[in-house]
Amino acid sequence: MSGVTPDPTAEALPGPPGEKVVAMLGRGVVPPDTPLLRADDLGVVRGDGVFETLHVRDGQPWLLDAHLDRMARSAALMDLDLPPRETLAELAATACAAWPRAHEGALRLVCTRGAEPLPGAAYGPVTVFATLSPVGPAVRAIRREGAAAVTATLGLAAATRPAAPWLLGGVKSLSYAVNMASQRWAARQGVDDVLWVSADGYALEAPTSSLVWLLGGTLYTVPAEPTGILPGTTARWLLDHAPALGWRAEERLIRPAELFDADAVWLTSSVRGLVPLRALDGKELPRSPEHTLAAQELLGFPV
Amino acid sequence: MSGVTPDPTAEALPGPPGEKVVAMLGRGVVPPDTPLLRADDLGVVRGDGVFETLHVRDGQPWLLDAHLDRMARSAALMDLDLPPRETLAELAATACAAWPRAHEGALRLVCTRGAEPLPGAAYGPVTVFATLSPVGPAVRAIRREGAAAVTATLGLAAATRPAAPWLLGGVKSLSYAVNMASQRWAARQGVDDVLWVSADGYALEAPTSSLVWLLGGTLYTVPAEPTGILPGTTARWLLDHAPALGWRAEERLIRPAELFDADAVWLTSSVRGLVPLRALDGKELPRSPEHTLAAQELLGFPV
Repeated sequence: MSGVTPDPTAEALPGPPGEKVVAMLGRGVVPPDTPLLRADDLGVVRGDGVFETLHVRDGQPWLLDAHLDRMARSAALMDLDLPPRETLAELAATACAAWPRAHEGALRLVCTRGAEPLPGAAYGPVTVFATLSPVGPAVRAIRREGAAAVTATLGLAAATRPAAPWLLGGVKSLSYAVNMASQRWAARQGVDDVLWVSADGYALEAPTSSLVWLLGGTLYTVPAEPTGILPGTTARWLLDHAPALGWRAEERLIRPAELFDADAVWLTSSVRGLVPLRALDGKELPRSPEHTLAAQELLGFPV
Repeated sequence: MSGVTPDPTAEALPGPPGEKVVAMLGRGVVPPDTPLLRADDLGVVRGDGVFETLHVRDGQPWLLDAHLDRMARSAALMDLDLPPRETLAELAATACAAWPRAHEGALRLVCTRGAEPLPGAAYGPVTVFATLSPVGPAVRAIRREGAAAVTATLGLAAATRPAAPWLLGGVKSLSYAVNMASQRWAARQGVDDVLWVSADGYALEAPTSSLVWLLGGTLYTVPAEPTGILPGTTARWLLDHAPALGWRAEERLIRPAELFDADAVWLTSSVRGLVPLRALDGKELPRSPEHTLAAQELLGFPV
C-alpha cells in the first residue's frame, strides 16, 4: 500500500483510540500521564524549543523527511542542538509502533533547550520527546464541510521578518501563545479559524495552516522566504504534485479581497490535510467540491 | 527590616546557593530535577500559560501584590483559569521558606493551561508551580557596570497590539522564544541586550526589562496601554516613588535618538533591578552614577 493512500479499514473502525502515546528519547514509550519535564525546562518557562506535527497513516509518519528538514532548519535558526536526524526518525518510529495502525494519528516531535542552567553554567542536554494523539471526528468534519475564517492582522509587514532574524520568521518554535490566542479569538467571533494578514495588507497564513488557492488551473500558495511565514509541508507537497491534478504551481502574494476571485481556496496543514476555506469575514468564498475531493484523494487524507 | 532594604549580611556570604528550589501546587517543595510536567502540557507544546518573575530578598518575594495583579491580568487576557490569588501567594511562600534568607533569589510563578485534552474533551486543571533560582554575580556586575544594547525592530507599530488583542500585548505569556532569540542576537553583536523599537520608530522595551530615563528632573517610562508592552512592575514602583528622589514621574513615547539627550537611561526588571543603559548601537549614552546609586538604593537591590 502506498504511503499516500489511507488505510481503507480505518473508516470501518469505531473511532480513534482514547489514549495518547508518549515516547521520550532514551526512555521509549511511557504512560501518557507520566511527568517528563522539569519545572525549569526552557521549553516550558520560555517556549524555547522547536516542534513538528506529522500525520500518522498506516502506522507511519507521513512526509517524515520534509518535517525533519524543517525541524532542522527551525533548530538552526534558534541555535538549538537538535539530535541527529536518525535519532528523531527512530523516536517517531518508536511512538508509531505503539499506535494502532488502522487509526489516523497526530505525531508531535518536540525538542526543547532543556533545563535552565544555573547562573554562569552552560546549557545541559536538550529535552526530546514525541506525543501521538488521536485525530477526532471534528477533523474529518472540517475536511468535508470546510472552515469559516476571519482576517486578523499579524501586525508585521510582509517583508519585516526576513530582515529581522530575531523575530524567528519561518521557525516552528514552541512559542505558540499568539497562534492559540488567534484561534480563541476566531471562536469568539463564531468562526473556525483566523487568516493572518500582514500590516501591508497581504494574506499570510493561518495560525496552524497554510493558505492555498486555485485560479485558472494554477495552484498557488504564499511564498515563505520573503514573508517569514512557516513553509508548509503539506502545501509544498501539494504544489509539487499539482501536475498530477492537471495544475501548474506557483507562489505569490495575495490580498484577502483577491481570494474571492479564485476558483477554490483551501487551508492545508499536516493533520487536517486540505480544508476548504468556505467563508472569509462573513462572505462566502468560491468553492469547488470536485477539486477539493481530487486534492484530498491525492493527499491521502480520509474524509 | 523594611522589605525595600536588602539584607546587609548577604554581601558577606560566599555567594548564592548552588541549587534551585521547586515547589508545585498541591505537592509542595520537590527536588529541582523532579520531572513535573507531562509531555503534552500546553505550557510546553504551545507556550500556552503565564508567568511572573519576582525578586526574593530577606526571604520574601518583593512586590508580590503587583506581580499577582499583573499575572491575573495576563491570565484574563489569555482566558486562563488562574488559581486564587491567596493560593499563588502561598505557593510563593512555600518556595521562599525553603530558600536561604540571606541570598537574593529569582522566584518564578508559572501557570500553564495543563495537559492538551483529547479531541472533543474539555481542558483539565491548570499546571501551577514555582521555581526559585540563585542570582549570579553577573547580575550584580551589570547593576554596577551597566549594559550596552542595540536597537532591533519588533516589527509592529506602537499602536498595533492594543487594537489586536489576539497579539497578546501586555501579556506575560510563556511564549518567550522571540525574547530569547533577541537576546542571543544581541550577544552575537557583542552587546548585553536589545532595545526593541516599533515599526514606526519608537523605543518600546527590552526583551526582559522596561526602559526608564531621567530628563530635567522627571523620570519617564514608555506607556504600556497604548503600546502593548509589558507594564513593568519595577518601573511602576520606581515612578510611583520618584518624589522620594526629588523627581517628577511621567509616561511618554520616545525615539531612540532622543535617549542621547537624557540625563540618564536605565533598564528596569524584577531581578536585575535598575541597570544603567550605557551604550546604544555603539554610541555612549549619558550616565549619572549618582542618580543610579540613589535609585538602586531606593529600590533595594544590592550592587
